[in-house]
Amino acid sequence: MPERVSDIGEFGLIRRIRDLLNREGMRSERLTLGIGDDTASFLPRPGYELLVTCDCMVEGRHYLPKHISPLNLGRRAMALNISDIGAMGGRPLYALISLGLKADTLVQDIEEVYRGFLAELNPFGAAIIGGNLTQSGNGMFIDITLIGEVEQGRGVRRSGARPGDVILVTGYPGQAAAGLNLLLHAPDEAKLLKHPLVKIYNTPSHRARLGEAIAQGGWATAMIDISDGFLGDLGHICEESGVGAELFQEKLPISEELREAALMLQRTPYDFILGDSDDYELVITCRPKDVAPLRVISERCCPVPLTEVGRVTDTAREMTLIFPNGERRAVKPSSWDHFRLTHGLIT
Amino acid sequence: MPERVSDIGEFGLIRRIRDLLNREGMRSERLTLGIGDDTASFLPRPGYELLVTCDCMVEGRHYLPKHISPLNLGRRAMALNISDIGAMGGRPLYALISLGLKADTLVQDIEEVYRGFLAELNPFGAAIIGGNLTQSGNGMFIDITLIGEVEQGRGVRRSGARPGDVILVTGYPGQAAAGLNLLLHAPDEAKLLKHPLVKIYNTPSHRARLGEAIAQGGWATAMIDISDGFLGDLGHICEESGVGAELFQEKLPISEELREAALMLQRTPYDFILGDSDDYELVITCRPKDVAPLRVISERCCPVPLTEVGRVTDTAREMTLIFPNGERRAVKPSSWDHFRLTHGLIT
Repeated sequence: MPERVSDIGEFGLIRRIRDLLNREGMRSERLTLGIGDDTASFLPRPGYELLVTCDCMVEGRHYLPKHISPLNLGRRAMALNISDIGAMGGRPLYALISLGLKADTLVQDIEEVYRGFLAELNPFGAAIIGGNLTQSGNGMFIDITLIGEVEQGRGVRRSGARPGDVILVTGYPGQAAAGLNLLLHAPDEAKLLKHPLVKIYNTPSHRARLGEAIAQGGWATAMIDISDGFLGDLGHICEESGVGAELFQEKLPISEELREAALMLQRTPYDFILGDSDDYELVITCRPKDVAPLRVISERCCPVPLTEVGRVTDTAREMTLIFPNGERRAVKPSSWDHFRLTHGLIT
Repeated sequence: MPERVSDIGEFGLIRRIRDLLNREGMRSERLTLGIGDDTASFLPRPGYELLVTCDCMVEGRHYLPKHISPLNLGRRAMALNISDIGAMGGRPLYALISLGLKADTLVQDIEEVYRGFLAELNPFGAAIIGGNLTQSGNGMFIDITLIGEVEQGRGVRRSGARPGDVILVTGYPGQAAAGLNLLLHAPDEAKLLKHPLVKIYNTPSHRARLGEAIAQGGWATAMIDISDGFLGDLGHICEESGVGAELFQEKLPISEELREAALMLQRTPYDFILGDSDDYELVITCRPKDVAPLRVISERCCPVPLTEVGRVTDTAREMTLIFPNGERRAVKPSSWDHFRLTHGLIT
């Protein structure tokens, strides 16, 4: 009989997790105290700012267990947070994990979730240094706080975009939404788990390496990662910078996979690229002269293309899509909203 | 009609919270970026270690809405985390709040929960710098990550107790458990909310000011706050320090209120003081010569007595209770365990 959380109890589970982290996790030399005391402690690096973010995934709301393995669930939850640190130009250092668990959860599934966390953290030498375990009512939740660092004054905010700046985006926004739609509308889900877009949805790649390199070079005026859809997050830049944006429809990057999936789903690729989609790609603005060095650095440390898609304008908060025939159409983000959800996992 | 979360949506709620924090919260001069970007950022103080802890409260598991007001719920959730920072000898600086909410939650209740957070943070000049809002299934949860600081090398751990050290405790452990029991077993709950022990349970006082002063003086060899009961947390010190403990029964501090409540509940005060109880008092060990300065500092910055209750021994992990007639009895913590709970809120 495989062990369940209720068999070994809270303290038993803490010991198991601690052992797993000791065996498979990284050690940080600036960590002065890890799991097992009232708090963890570490010595910050002189000359660096600390970055802090937290993000939570709730069963039935952000994921369904039948659609994602425990390992990939852990990877996804951690990648979301790493993406936020990367979008500031930082590097992840320390994670705290707060889990809400059902008593009948399999211990081996929890261990797999932690292996997923480590799969994302280990490449950065980042470590899990604390957390909290609690029993939750009828569904699991994973709440991660991630601490990172960036050289003092080099963090890239949402608020620095200026009229005339170029708008760039990494990869192919919309792919994650298409992957999610395939999962939700397909008759045979199990087969679909290997579909490239479903994989992109389930285990998104963050662009934190690129974000860090961009911050070091000082080339970006604003940067954000895509969790509310390309338009939604570009909208956040416009809002915080007090600017607008013009986008050229024919420049929007569309992958072959997205084109095919849209066809299958009887939609257009633009429904996905301009709608809600959590792709964890980067939206970047920069002065025109900095596009060239950005391209060089992107080719060096990012496996997907960097595409110039538009310009920052001085029409505050207005976003316009320009078609090849010159037609201009005002566009608004459909604004993913967890409390007024229409396209969510559970509707 | 009072507004509900579903009326104003996630982004509306974020704005409301941001406004409330701007009006009623504190500003930190080392904070370089607050709520509203991919991450918050701050400049750590040179010569200080950072402390990080997180703690989660789940509706139906750690509290019942009918037993606690939204304001007190916020205070309680934050006090638990401040207590952890204080038990290391640190001072709280920054909090991140992750909330799982039902769509029909009243916006004014959420605002009251945040006022509760601020009631605990403001006296330290500490600020809420980020967080996450998500819809949860059938119950609310509040997950707080709290960051604090302590002068480098001055943090007080669980692992430093040595044989011959004196064991001290602040206040009256067991009072919180008695308060909880009164709440759960009383016919008229509403009247009970003003009972002093119920108040102690609902809005526990942390001893973070004392913890910080003790760390600065360097008097403690080990320190922990009581969240798993006095014996449970003394047991954590024994475990991490590789030592044992002798406790003198007649020295255990019992308040008049606890004595009366025990009588009402047909139990003995020792059931509560030696059982599970989350009192957020401090258990401290120190060398005998340091008891005197500890008493002085405690009288200066702690409103409850500091009581010498026993000695650290070299019998690893064994705790013994010594009765006035010389009888010795081995005692074990009943080990509060969220997954194998027998005395919990919901059984």
